[in-house]
Amino acid sequence: MSKKSERLIFGVDPGTAIVGWGLIAQSGNRLHLVGAGCVKNAPALTQSERLVRIFDQISALLKRHTPDVIAVEQLFFAKNVTTGISVAQARGVILLAAARAGVRLAEYRPMQIKQSVCGYARADKRQVQEMVKRILNLKEIIRPDDAADALAAAICHANSAILEKIKVKE
Amino acid sequence: MSKKSERLIFGVDPGTAIVGWGLIAQSGNRLHLVGAGCVKNAPALTQSERLVRIFDQISALLKRHTPDVIAVEQLFFAKNVTTGISVAQARGVILLAAARAGVRLAEYRPMQIKQSVCGYARADKRQVQEMVKRILNLKEIIRPDDAADALAAAICHANSAILEKIKVKE
Repeated sequence: MSKKSERLIFGVDPGTAIVGWGLIAQSGNRLHLVGAGCVKNAPALTQSERLVRIFDQISALLKRHTPDVIAVEQLFFAKNVTTGISVAQARGVILLAAARAGVRLAEYRPMQIKQSVCGYARADKRQVQEMVKRILNLKEIIRPDDAADALAAAICHANSAILEKIKVKE
Repeated sequence: MSKKSERLIFGVDPGTAIVGWGLIAQSGNRLHLVGAGCVKNAPALTQSERLVRIFDQISALLKRHTPDVIAVEQLFFAKNVTTGISVAQARGVILLAAARAGVRLAEYRPMQIKQSVCGYARADKRQVQEMVKRILNLKEIIRPDDAADALAAAICHANSAILEKIKVKE
């Protein structure tokens, strides 16, 4: 359970085969890992079955952890539009789960997340994993990379909140 | 209420501002209109609020009418990718509502629907509305066109089923 002064940030990396999730606690400008994992969908499942599993499992996680905010990457379809449609459908049920659980939504662009976590917007997956490990003071990198990406979204939100506070003080 | 020999087909036209829906009953190769309408979302609503409204209202309609099948257009992002992401998210919660209600899903490509309803794949919205009116023997065209598009998807499914039967007989 989290202490009162802590803020819980639930990050999600939407997908259709794998949805990464990661939960961090923020107190002041210190962050620590509460949990991370993923919803894995077997290739044999239909799109509808995947959506049900994603909605049910994300809903259960939000109910169990009662985070203050959910941080989700915004989608851009530069590469594969067909995969993109499935991912957007999955993102739809994740947003529904968050709204149903009464959890506030924060959205960040992929480059914004990388900029925030790695210091530059074109960082690759390996660099994101490494920086997530360092920031959360972990012994090993988080696997799969979907869970690391989810934590990166959560860290991006935490950093934005810290920056907001500094601005207010100035 | 529908008779035992009838099959109820619920068509949906996914969107984020407006989701069209239309319900037809099929007995043999006769089709008739049971109901049609749309879920309208005010521009001021957030994406999350829209998804909740779409999920709740489509779920309520499926519960009330208990259709045998839901026919939904497949998405293609040729024109506006940004709108496309929102529409795909809406489509995700519609598929979730169908799966939760235990309603079988049938998907058709936009050109397949126009081919089936109008006889040619590049028919425009006005032609779809006109043919939906004729096929269902209505006095006026169905408005908004989102509801007519939803009925077109349902008619396409009905036609596919009739064609299947003819093939089996041959």
